[in-house]
Amino acid sequence: MKFYGEWTLCGRNKGTDKYCEKFKAAVPGNAQWDYAKSHGMENFTFSDGVYAFKEIEDYEWLYETILDFNAKKGEKVFFVAEGIDYQYEILLDGEVIHSGEGMYSKIEIDITDKAQKGSKLSVFVYAPPKRDDAPKGTRDEADRFCKPPVSYGWDWNPRLLISGIWKPCYIETRATDYIYNCEPFYTLNAGRTTAKVRFETTCEGKVEYTVKDPMGKVVYNGTENEFELNNIALWWCNGQGEPNLYSWTAKTETDEKCGHIGFRTVKLVHNEGVDKLGAFPKGRYPCPITIELNGRRIFAKGSNWVNPDLFFGRVTDERYKELVPLAKEANMNIFRCWGGAGINKEAFYEECDKNGIMVWQEFMLACNNYIDDPHYLSVLKKEATSIIKALRKYPSLVLWCGGNELFNDWSGMDDQSLVLRTLNALCLEYDSKNPFIMTSPVFGMAHGNYSFMDWDDGKDVFHRFTNSANTAYTEFGVGAIAAEEDLRTIIPENELFPINDTPAWRAHHGFGAWIMDTWVCHSVINRYFGEDDNLKDRIAHSNWLQSMGYKAIFEEARRQWGTCSMAINWCFNEPWLTAAGNSLISYPAKPKPAYFEVKKSLRNVMPSARIKKFEWEAGETFTAELWYHNDGVNTESDTISVSITLDGKEYFLLDWQTGEVSSGENKLGPAVNFILPENVKDNKLVLTLKSKEGRDNGYALLYKAKEQNFNENKTNI
Amino acid sequence: MKFYGEWTLCGRNKGTDKYCEKFKAAVPGNAQWDYAKSHGMENFTFSDGVYAFKEIEDYEWLYETILDFNAKKGEKVFFVAEGIDYQYEILLDGEVIHSGEGMYSKIEIDITDKAQKGSKLSVFVYAPPKRDDAPKGTRDEADRFCKPPVSYGWDWNPRLLISGIWKPCYIETRATDYIYNCEPFYTLNAGRTTAKVRFETTCEGKVEYTVKDPMGKVVYNGTENEFELNNIALWWCNGQGEPNLYSWTAKTETDEKCGHIGFRTVKLVHNEGVDKLGAFPKGRYPCPITIELNGRRIFAKGSNWVNPDLFFGRVTDERYKELVPLAKEANMNIFRCWGGAGINKEAFYEECDKNGIMVWQEFMLACNNYIDDPHYLSVLKKEATSIIKALRKYPSLVLWCGGNELFNDWSGMDDQSLVLRTLNALCLEYDSKNPFIMTSPVFGMAHGNYSFMDWDDGKDVFHRFTNSANTAYTEFGVGAIAAEEDLRTIIPENELFPINDTPAWRAHHGFGAWIMDTWVCHSVINRYFGEDDNLKDRIAHSNWLQSMGYKAIFEEARRQWGTCSMAINWCFNEPWLTAAGNSLISYPAKPKPAYFEVKKSLRNVMPSARIKKFEWEAGETFTAELWYHNDGVNTESDTISVSITLDGKEYFLLDWQTGEVSSGENKLGPAVNFILPENVKDNKLVLTLKSKEGRDNGYALLYKAKEQNFNENKTNI
Repeated sequence: MKFYGEWTLCGRNKGTDKYCEKFKAAVPGNAQWDYAKSHGMENFTFSDGVYAFKEIEDYEWLYETILDFNAKKGEKVFFVAEGIDYQYEILLDGEVIHSGEGMYSKIEIDITDKAQKGSKLSVFVYAPPKRDDAPKGTRDEADRFCKPPVSYGWDWNPRLLISGIWKPCYIETRATDYIYNCEPFYTLNAGRTTAKVRFETTCEGKVEYTVKDPMGKVVYNGTENEFELNNIALWWCNGQGEPNLYSWTAKTETDEKCGHIGFRTVKLVHNEGVDKLGAFPKGRYPCPITIELNGRRIFAKGSNWVNPDLFFGRVTDERYKELVPLAKEANMNIFRCWGGAGINKEAFYEECDKNGIMVWQEFMLACNNYIDDPHYLSVLKKEATSIIKALRKYPSLVLWCGGNELFNDWSGMDDQSLVLRTLNALCLEYDSKNPFIMTSPVFGMAHGNYSFMDWDDGKDVFHRFTNSANTAYTEFGVGAIAAEEDLRTIIPENELFPINDTPAWRAHHGFGAWIMDTWVCHSVINRYFGEDDNLKDRIAHSNWLQSMGYKAIFEEARRQWGTCSMAINWCFNEPWLTAAGNSLISYPAKPKPAYFEVKKSLRNVMPSARIKKFEWEAGETFTAELWYHNDGVNTESDTISVSITLDGKEYFLLDWQTGEVSSGENKLGPAVNFILPENVKDNKLVLTLKSKEGRDNGYALLYKAKEQNFNENKTNI
Repeated sequence: MKFYGEWTLCGRNKGTDKYCEKFKAAVPGNAQWDYAKSHGMENFTFSDGVYAFKEIEDYEWLYETILDFNAKKGEKVFFVAEGIDYQYEILLDGEVIHSGEGMYSKIEIDITDKAQKGSKLSVFVYAPPKRDDAPKGTRDEADRFCKPPVSYGWDWNPRLLISGIWKPCYIETRATDYIYNCEPFYTLNAGRTTAKVRFETTCEGKVEYTVKDPMGKVVYNGTENEFELNNIALWWCNGQGEPNLYSWTAKTETDEKCGHIGFRTVKLVHNEGVDKLGAFPKGRYPCPITIELNGRRIFAKGSNWVNPDLFFGRVTDERYKELVPLAKEANMNIFRCWGGAGINKEAFYEECDKNGIMVWQEFMLACNNYIDDPHYLSVLKKEATSIIKALRKYPSLVLWCGGNELFNDWSGMDDQSLVLRTLNALCLEYDSKNPFIMTSPVFGMAHGNYSFMDWDDGKDVFHRFTNSANTAYTEFGVGAIAAEEDLRTIIPENELFPINDTPAWRAHHGFGAWIMDTWVCHSVINRYFGEDDNLKDRIAHSNWLQSMGYKAIFEEARRQWGTCSMAINWCFNEPWLTAAGNSLISYPAKPKPAYFEVKKSLRNVMPSARIKKFEWEAGETFTAELWYHNDGVNTESDTISVSITLDGKEYFLLDWQTGEVSSGENKLGPAVNFILPENVKDNKLVLTLKSKEGRDNGYALLYKAKEQNFNENKTNI
């Protein structure tokens, strides 16, 4: 039996004596949000209000509750905190009964002999940790701690250090037959039709197990903890089959635990065509990065998942239930849970299990140099062990990863890091059924760029990606400005247009976020469309680029299937409303226009066109290669009618009968060639691929009148 | 007290009942060699005699001895076998008292209550293991076992499966204060001047420790197992300082153990200039592969060490004492102990410690796909643990490696291998002070080629390596024919010349060894020198190419220092006399001409010339870049006089005053240009770099008369 209490909270600046007045605390939650609500900072998202949190950045907090519980005779009483962020002491009637560091390890303290109804239980939470000698106010401050560095400031997450009791916390009375631990493991036979199931259970009572198949039919009931199940319905990711889940319960007289099993095998295997190397002296081939799920090679298409809120503690199950299905609807099959944002609450993985979204889970390391410091290593070892043991049961979790961009010059780590070798060893020890990579990217993979156009050479993503050959594109971003109605909730009316580098835009990552003029990116939009004279047009142009940019990259990566096996854009969601950014979904769960274009580009079966650039000039020969994708499990065929529309006039180009396109095939068809007429007024060049099977695709490109060739070089000819 | 007995041996084909007659066994040794000696096969190295071992390939063997020992009251009696190759049962008076698999784990069995003087102790050794479903007679048969695959046949090691009691084996009586285990560990302070030493000892008696510094002065004596030493003299590799060793003893009343400590720190750090990557999409930088010894970046120059005998069991300490100092004399500082040959006896590492030769130690995996089979994994785990614990005490051991060429298409393994992840985890657990790489090459490094000239494009190694950019060249080979007097011991007189693909040449790897006409390589020699009409000339031409080939590669790798940090040729030694091959040393320990050229090319301080090819034509402008190398610890300077000699005539080109060349610098000087005269009779073009400091260098290149340009293309001009 669990007893949840009411909590109060007070805080004080580190190094001072006096706490502020007590206020009501939400548990689970974050102290900083509770403080904000009780101190008139609820609307901090407007303009540059977020900077107000700077004031309480170094606060330490005291949570207090008066215990109220009833224990039956013979029952033990436990204080349970499923997660406290980050360093803490737990006191019972003023006496320290536990202290610890790390937000991912569950705390369970037997207080049977110490606590009674009316006892005061306090949780003292130290100020968010910072490496003393790191540059102040940078993410480097996070590089000795097992805490998501994103809160220390990122180009789409304002600096806002959080802490507190971020997961459920309660008193639990436990009878002698309480089930302390119960976890199912299984091995599948070679044909993946039969499973040997084994429950590992810690319980002093007699346990009865029941397993039901995905249809709800009981397939096992008994007290043996090892048994065999036949006719297994496998767990499949979205697009490849059903995400079949078996439910189980383990029961004693007074307790019951439940969960589910998704039967599947997963491996990382070599990409095609990369194993044969050139002449001597000869190196190694790229790292395997093709997911083989249940023996089937999968093109992983999806998005980078980040923290869905600045306050991790206030993320609800409902938030996951809004967001995760949006990935499924967009024909995605994978989330890369980016390390900088740490580990989600378990409800997230439940949703991924149900929606068939594979999870690539990173540990909480990103873009920093996490050195082999003994204290850090010992906390990491404890935290990583807790994380692996908590998440290995989810069939959706298919890949462990040390963290983000650790083998790049801005991080400086490498294969010899004891930190990463420890994570590899722990994943091997506790979850060898799932693969492990030290970071992303590893050899063969690539990240970037994060703009429709590269500033260094002015080339667009159509050009860039048709000229790239990598085994996996696991970060690539194209930004867009938020919708007008959303902007109005965060930008003062008088700063809305023209869009300038004002405090509100800057606080919301419109300017000064990363390089150049990110993320509003006037320089990029102007390059194609010139200046706009109203907000609506600027927003529309920006979203046109995001939609077509993501479309270009996702589809090109799919055309490279075999050599390339992943396309995962940066990013899916965002932790608060950004004024401009790379996400497909605006906070909290509102798809941007690009979301719908990506959804179209990720359909299992569909035609696409390889186009070498976005902008075309009158008189130029427009050319595009036709392709037909089949990521599904059946053989398909189609007839594609290709046309170009300019200024309302449609030019029919050809019909392509694809013939049979087998499962897993990406078939190259003919190329279209079309000399672009001059004197067209509209700047939109639409290429339409009309599908007989209703799988239409299309591209809104840019048409430009012929340039006046009066520049110096040319007049000399 | 140890009691070594006399052993007999008999064998029988697997699956048969009857053993052959008993004969004397050498312990340690190999059953096959004992059999050979007692069955008239001692001279198997002549002609194709080695094939006779095929007859006994699948023999299982029975070693027997009658115990003869005296135990004092209270002493325990142990049977100790330091290594049995490969699967075995140990019987005492007919009763099985132990069985096991794996040749690297020491066996210690308490037989106090079972054995007495006169007891019969038998060791039954199963036939050398083979994977049943592997192609017969190939190295693939070795890919489920922790046994060096080299014995299954390699391009320089005939197939000759060995087994038996290959390491010392004895009865040991142990008093109550016997020291079961004693191993020193240490940590150095940041300045590497003070060491905290800690002995881990398993002993029930009182232990007295004594430590002497490299000069023999006692620096610690006492019974505390933890203490501090000051003014540490560090262990350095050859060329960078002294290989200082502290000796220690641990004593009880009846027992004493001893050993030495070499204080040093080692890391793999990033190569220079490789961390900055190109444009987005961006991958990772190459794996770190520069050895940092005691904080100093070291260019690793050395050779691949292979098994110094076909019969691992008969390798003596003396063999190591002949071979290892040859590396030191050749100015080398590293051996890569190639995985295919497994792990050496400990005397090898003792020699490396004393000679300052760093050891890169691979586990016994090579060129095969070692799959994640549970039984193999469990044996590997046991064997690897034994190996790491046995070798981690040697300061010379600076790098662990999973095995040879496992990430290449002929092996097919990768970073996800549970086998390699297990080895990484074990090295982390038991020896985290030393780095670990999964295989060679990892990303950035390269292997090959193994010929003076690439057959695919006809380019020589001068061309190939000046056009390569890798972080480490850890295998590259240039072959040569053995010396005439050696050939006469293995090739019948009538097959000596002309050199043809006869059974004797083939058995000794002259033909059909690897690709093309390896290792005699007539096609390569003829390309430069045409046919020879006598054995002497053929041998001389072959060795000319090997000498200049190795010189070219070693020196070019040194010129790439920074980006490149290793040059390790294939290979140093050989397990028996090959008729032709890539080694620098002929069996057992006789340097080839190339050895002396390599020795010259690896001097710490010296000039070199970057030459773009070996063969030059009359009328052509000969060109070479001058360099000055300083791998030493002092600043150097020199004056280099450059001349060319053709047909006895010397042409002086220039004097280069190098100015100061600091420690670790490779300084680029001027280039020489020289139009080659026509009508020179001799084919030798000698470039001489005369050093004022006595560090002369020189190159014997090939001069060719002008080709008659009467081919079709040219007449059309």
